[in-house]
Amino acid sequence: MSEKRVCVSDFEVEARKVLPKAVYDYYSSGAEEQVTLADNVAAFKRWRLIPRVLRDVSSVDLSVSVLGRKLNMPLCVAATAMQRMAHPDGETATARACRAVGTGMMLSSWATSTIEEVTSAMTSSPGVGGVLWLQLYIYKDRALTLSLIRRAEEAGCEAIFVTVDTPYLGRRLEDMRNCFKLPSHLRLANFSTDSLAFSEGDYGSDSGLAVYVGKAIDPALCWDDITWLKKITHLPVIVKGVLTGEDAARAVDYGVDGILVSNHGARQLDGVPATLDVLEEVVEATKGRCDVYLDGGVRRGTDVLKALALGAKAVFIGRPVLWGLACQGEQGVLAVLQLLKDELKLAMALAGCRSLSEVSRSLVRRVEVTSRI
Amino acid sequence: MSEKRVCVSDFEVEARKVLPKAVYDYYSSGAEEQVTLADNVAAFKRWRLIPRVLRDVSSVDLSVSVLGRKLNMPLCVAATAMQRMAHPDGETATARACRAVGTGMMLSSWATSTIEEVTSAMTSSPGVGGVLWLQLYIYKDRALTLSLIRRAEEAGCEAIFVTVDTPYLGRRLEDMRNCFKLPSHLRLANFSTDSLAFSEGDYGSDSGLAVYVGKAIDPALCWDDITWLKKITHLPVIVKGVLTGEDAARAVDYGVDGILVSNHGARQLDGVPATLDVLEEVVEATKGRCDVYLDGGVRRGTDVLKALALGAKAVFIGRPVLWGLACQGEQGVLAVLQLLKDELKLAMALAGCRSLSEVSRSLVRRVEVTSRI
Amino acid sequence: MSEKRVCVSDFEVEARKVLPKAVYDYYSSGAEEQVTLADNVAAFKRWRLIPRVLRDVSSVDLSVSVLGRKLNMPLCVAATAMQRMAHPDGETATARACRAVGTGMMLSSWATSTIEEVTSAMTSSPGVGGVLWLQLYIYKDRALTLSLIRRAEEAGCEAIFVTVDTPYLGRRLEDMRNCFKLPSHLRLANFSTDSLAFSEGDYGSDSGLAVYVGKAIDPALCWDDITWLKKITHLPVIVKGVLTGEDAARAVDYGVDGILVSNHGARQLDGVPATLDVLEEVVEATKGRCDVYLDGGVRRGTDVLKALALGAKAVFIGRPVLWGLACQGEQGVLAVLQLLKDELKLAMALAGCRSLSEVSRSLVRRVEVTSRI
Amino acid sequence: MSEKRVCVSDFEVEARKVLPKAVYDYYSSGAEEQVTLADNVAAFKRWRLIPRVLRDVSSVDLSVSVLGRKLNMPLCVAATAMQRMAHPDGETATARACRAVGTGMMLSSWATSTIEEVTSAMTSSPGVGGVLWLQLYIYKDRALTLSLIRRAEEAGCEAIFVTVDTPYLGRRLEDMRNCFKLPSHLRLANFSTDSLAFSEGDYGSDSGLAVYVGKAIDPALCWDDITWLKKITHLPVIVKGVLTGEDAARAVDYGVDGILVSNHGARQLDGVPATLDVLEEVVEATKGRCDVYLDGGVRRGTDVLKALALGAKAVFIGRPVLWGLACQGEQGVLAVLQLLKDELKLAMALAGCRSLSEVSRSLVRRVEVTSRI
Ligand SMILES: Cc1cc2nc3c(=O)[nH]c(=O)nc-3n(C[C@H](O)[C@H](O)[C@H](O)COP(=O)(O)O)c2cc1C
Ligand SMILES: Cc1cc2nc3c(=O)[nH]c(=O)nc-3n(C[C@H](O)[C@H](O)[C@H](O)COP(=O)(O)O)c2cc1C
Ligand SMILES: Cc1cc2nc3c(=O)[nH]c(=O)nc-3n(C[C@H](O)[C@H](O)[C@H](O)COP(=O)(O)O)c2cc1C
Ligand SMILES: Cc1cc2nc3c(=O)[nH]c(=O)nc-3n(C[C@H](O)[C@H](O)[C@H](O)COP(=O)(O)O)c2cc1C
Repeated sequence: MSEKRVCVSDFEVEARKVLPKAVYDYYSSGAEEQVTLADNVAAFKRWRLIPRVLRDVSSVDLSVSVLGRKLNMPLCVAATAMQRMAHPDGETATARACRAVGTGMMLSSWATSTIEEVTSAMTSSPGVGGVLWLQLYIYKDRALTLSLIRRAEEAGCEAIFVTVDTPYLGRRLEDMRNCFKLPSHLRLANFSTDSLAFSEGDYGSDSGLAVYVGKAIDPALCWDDITWLKKITHLPVIVKGVLTGEDAARAVDYGVDGILVSNHGARQLDGVPATLDVLEEVVEATKGRCDVYLDGGVRRGTDVLKALALGAKAVFIGRPVLWGLACQGEQGVLAVLQLLKDELKLAMALAGCRSLSEVSRSLVRRVEVTSRI
Repeated sequence: MSEKRVCVSDFEVEARKVLPKAVYDYYSSGAEEQVTLADNVAAFKRWRLIPRVLRDVSSVDLSVSVLGRKLNMPLCVAATAMQRMAHPDGETATARACRAVGTGMMLSSWATSTIEEVTSAMTSSPGVGGVLWLQLYIYKDRALTLSLIRRAEEAGCEAIFVTVDTPYLGRRLEDMRNCFKLPSHLRLANFSTDSLAFSEGDYGSDSGLAVYVGKAIDPALCWDDITWLKKITHLPVIVKGVLTGEDAARAVDYGVDGILVSNHGARQLDGVPATLDVLEEVVEATKGRCDVYLDGGVRRGTDVLKALALGAKAVFIGRPVLWGLACQGEQGVLAVLQLLKDELKLAMALAGCRSLSEVSRSLVRRVEVTSRI
Repeated sequence: MSEKRVCVSDFEVEARKVLPKAVYDYYSSGAEEQVTLADNVAAFKRWRLIPRVLRDVSSVDLSVSVLGRKLNMPLCVAATAMQRMAHPDGETATARACRAVGTGMMLSSWATSTIEEVTSAMTSSPGVGGVLWLQLYIYKDRALTLSLIRRAEEAGCEAIFVTVDTPYLGRRLEDMRNCFKLPSHLRLANFSTDSLAFSEGDYGSDSGLAVYVGKAIDPALCWDDITWLKKITHLPVIVKGVLTGEDAARAVDYGVDGILVSNHGARQLDGVPATLDVLEEVVEATKGRCDVYLDGGVRRGTDVLKALALGAKAVFIGRPVLWGLACQGEQGVLAVLQLLKDELKLAMALAGCRSLSEVSRSLVRRVEVTSRI
Repeated sequence: MSEKRVCVSDFEVEARKVLPKAVYDYYSSGAEEQVTLADNVAAFKRWRLIPRVLRDVSSVDLSVSVLGRKLNMPLCVAATAMQRMAHPDGETATARACRAVGTGMMLSSWATSTIEEVTSAMTSSPGVGGVLWLQLYIYKDRALTLSLIRRAEEAGCEAIFVTVDTPYLGRRLEDMRNCFKLPSHLRLANFSTDSLAFSEGDYGSDSGLAVYVGKAIDPALCWDDITWLKKITHLPVIVKGVLTGEDAARAVDYGVDGILVSNHGARQLDGVPATLDVLEEVVEATKGRCDVYLDGGVRRGTDVLKALALGAKAVFIGRPVLWGLACQGEQGVLAVLQLLKDELKLAMALAGCRSLSEVSRSLVRRVEVTSRI
């Protein structure tokens, strides 16, 4: 039996032991020097929680409404590609865990399970209920892109998160050293040709995925494509990968239904700010015209609480889900989600918050400020 | 024989060697990532002492009046639970050491000696005199809670420190890993049933104490309970666990007799500020209407001096007493108290202060300030 | 075969293995405690890149005009002495690599190849085109100095970078410990006497190069010498080694054609600012009257981008070229230059910049600022 | 033969090897946690040197006038007790080295050579000339104190540095652990009784020196004693150990002839500011009415230059002299002094300063400032 797992990093330690090196490297890496990777996590340490005492916290309510659906907690699952490398059940296990705990899952365009498999896993599994959203990469081939959207609509996905930070793939040094590609028994399940399914035999001496992106993904993506997206689908469109107030304001002008403050888990341009560090700027720029979400570096219940206090409607986690999956498939993902839920609930109680409506800006202070008063 | 002990950490090193791992872990741990645990200590390093020279310091007076009693020094003992895990004499040894040095002891509700045993140990032992206060956890069962107060009153405790930061127990990861519970020969001595005495056989795979708190302690505690407390006892009531000016002002409005700025030794909500970092804010908020005390991370005579300069009337130590107890019982606690007293006296002399009335705000400067002038 | 090299430090690790210790030490060392050496690199980490999304980045143009010539990228090669210690082809290999990639090379006065050898290597080699500039040390013997200038003019060098930070040589401790001197088969190729060619048998127990500089280089160098230089040559004159706005303004008044913000790779006065930290001050002081360049600590494409955003027209690299040379001669230098070009191009794309004209001050923010908004 | 020594720390490394542990500990220790000890050195790293280029630095003049005497450099020797523990020649070796290099020596009251031996060593030795000052501890026995002054006057000492930061000895933990006392063949040479000469057989389990100070030194020392000192001697009186502008202004009011900003090498009250951090405050408070000196953490020529730029007339070194002495007696001290002189001269040249009159406040900037412009 494994050691007791009492925090997210326990899952990572165990996952690292069971995963092949190239898979662990792909999952864990950030771009280049990984300055932003470390900063995403460190940013949460730059804020202190300011607890209030003597408020009756005998019951604490974590529920939140996200994109029109009530979730059991303000913590959802971010898109991470190729989950079957972590566990044979891959994305379907994740979907079942989300349903069990009652939260949302953002499914990657690059899943190793089809959109249909994952939606059906979620709908058919027992549990309090969950929701599925599609993360969308815009391919050079727009017909192909459109077909992904249509399949998502039909399968019951309830929103599109369009990734806007990946015109090219970031330099992830270990993937370059490992000549990363999919294990031969797997493919990107939503595509039929080997070329699109990232299952060609040889990608040369570079990161295979970088080669794949260079060939397939559209680097010409621009604001007009948001207009196009909004026109061709009735689903809510959220832009994933905004890091400035300037772009956030523009996104709202282009009619997006939400903004996900993300630096792609620090896997694209190294040296960009930690997501938490730009959250307030983005929230202010939207002037309340759409919800703002955040991902990147969330590893603790207190991290969630800090992001909410700074204006996020909900947060997403990427890697922690992969560690859960690697440890124990669906049960592992469930354990991770449950752990974070427990941590968040306790943090709210100890901070004196009985519901998310009581989580406000005065709950947090910058480290420099607390240590200077 | 043991090495010479010339600072508090020498006691900790030795204690760690003699204590069972689960006991040392319980004593030393902070919550979750232990960010606040480290910060409590580090906060003192963020202040510099600004000494004045050529003041006749041939005599230095450390005495102070706390809750109506004159103590030999402005350093008292904070409540720490289950002291018999450190030494067979447990809380009675601590009481005798306090009396010998002439200071106050705050006795935990969760002592492994009864209130009566401890008060009698203190009164009967030789020494210059000490004082005993009760730390109170409010149980769901208010009759039980009331009986604790009555016993304290009768035994001669002189104040109630009501802990307000523990509606649930913080996540202390090592306790979870160790499935922490009391050694089988010990019980929380103030309670008669196994259930209340924390001496059931099995607490499952979690921290036993977290389970205990979940069952017994009242998470609905609120400001009205302060009103209730003030009404049912004539003893001074001090709230233990306030970290904001906002709550401090409120506490004064509710008639408390003192405020103990504390984060429970960083054992409850991780990520809250170091106590020293919020001391001034709390002092200012009380506008002099009650005394303010501090605990958390005090390990040196200079730490005491800094807290006093920032407005604390006196400070409390938790863990250092446990290390003294583990090393050498009553003699060990006495040695720790004496060491800190010597350090404080020397620090005052070298800083140019002949009595606590000469310890003022101008004695300290933030590191950033000194290093920028 | 060597490991795959995916970043500049991979080249350094490998170079360190193949180079004799005294050579590696000479190449890598900074002055004294090497505070500035570390700071040159660290300064880049103090800035965050602020990317803009959804700009069509299907093509990205790196070209720039430097000293009247169009280069394929805003990254050139700084003068580093004695390159044949790294590889038998020395400076000629570097010149060929610069031509292949289409950038500029600043040739050291202390090259181990003659000015004529290097210019002819560059002109005769295939490739998209490059440009050569002479780095000039002013010798006590002005006739000798003048002859260097004349040879550079005749050979086709297109500018003079006059080094102004070396009236004496900095204390490089390892060189002192190693009694550094040239290997016996090499000499400073532009000089005929052993004494001027730094090839005497014995330099005592000090750094041989410090002794050489003390004997040959003019510590009386002053502003009037800039006037002299401008008078005797028609080539553009750039001062190399300015670190203040004050000196920059003065340099412009003296008619220089460019300013290279440099601290000589932290090899002269330890404790001076990192070059990136003074770049903006220098740019502002010139009020657009001449171009400003920077060298020191550039190791990543994102470093180049940050320097450009802060006002540099182009940047130079010193040590990375030596590591490339040590690893694999011309091919190694080419690999380093190509790597940095690829990194820069990707960084621009991911930041939303399609050409250097789109790289502006708003692309970067100080770490303290991003982490405080 | 020993390794080549190219910086002060090389001397320390070697000294540590040759000295008995208790001696090395006594020499190197700071008080308690040694926070200030590290900070004294670190403070210099918080300033950057801002060099100016193209100033003719063919000659650089280091000479300065201190207490009425022209010295060859603005770097003198601070009082350090018991130098014969480092080398049989002890203080006489130091005196001869000072004379050889042409600087001043402050002789400790607790020297292991008599005042007369040291003055005669200095006067009789060859060399460009030096000067001797007495460091004075005020004993409870004022007649004894007076006799020390008289002997200093007669022997030719030219000033009295009265130490004001030692009413009691600081807690130096290693000395406590080592039960530090003088080796049996040595004594404080200026005193006749064993008790005053710190050569009793047994000082118990504490630091022997702390016991000695407690018995002999006057903790009642106050400002009036400065008046007394000024009255009884015609020699200039400098207060050693001032750390605030407040005390500095007062010292000037009491007629002192100079102020030495010192924290006793961080050996008294731990947690006080680094000396460099309060230098400007002290300089400003004196309003030019007397010279200000500094000691503490000076280890490099650039450190000297920074202190001068911030307003010190000259600086003193304590421990580096002891390391030189331990390595090689008089020659070792001379080597240390010469090394620092060389470093300072080079630093001035590379910074563009030809004499101390050109060293001004604009030569330095705080690290935070340079890295923010
Ligand atoms: C292994 C891995 C694969 C990812 N795949 C995708 C993806 O296919 N599409 C996408 O938009 N983001 C992808 N991301 C980024 C995540 O959606 C998310 O932004 C990021 O993981 C959040 O940071 P965290 O991992 O620190 O929680 C991936 C991240 C990781 C770690
Ligand atoms: C082992 C241990 C047990 C404690 N038990 C109690 C307790 O029973 N009641 C309480 O109010 N605080 C308790 N505390 C908190 C202390 O009263 C005090 O706030 C804290 O220890 C001060 O920090 P320090 O340990 O850094 O000095 C405990 C702390 C420790 C370390
Ligand atoms: C080994 C070495 C030799 C150098 N030789 C010279 C030189 O001959 N002339 C000169 O002006 N600068 C010389 N420099 C300084 C470089 O031109 C340049 O300013 C510096 O290397 C840039 O810093 P970087 O190495 O961090 O990129 C040398 C630097 C190094 C590392
Ligand atoms: C071993 C040692 C002995 C010292 N003895 C004396 C002394 O006898 N009297 C005194 O005023 N200061 C004494 N000092 C303090 C020095 O005069 C001086 O303030 C300090 O050493 C300067 O710091 P530095 O050692 O970092 O250069 C002593 C310092 C050391 C390290």
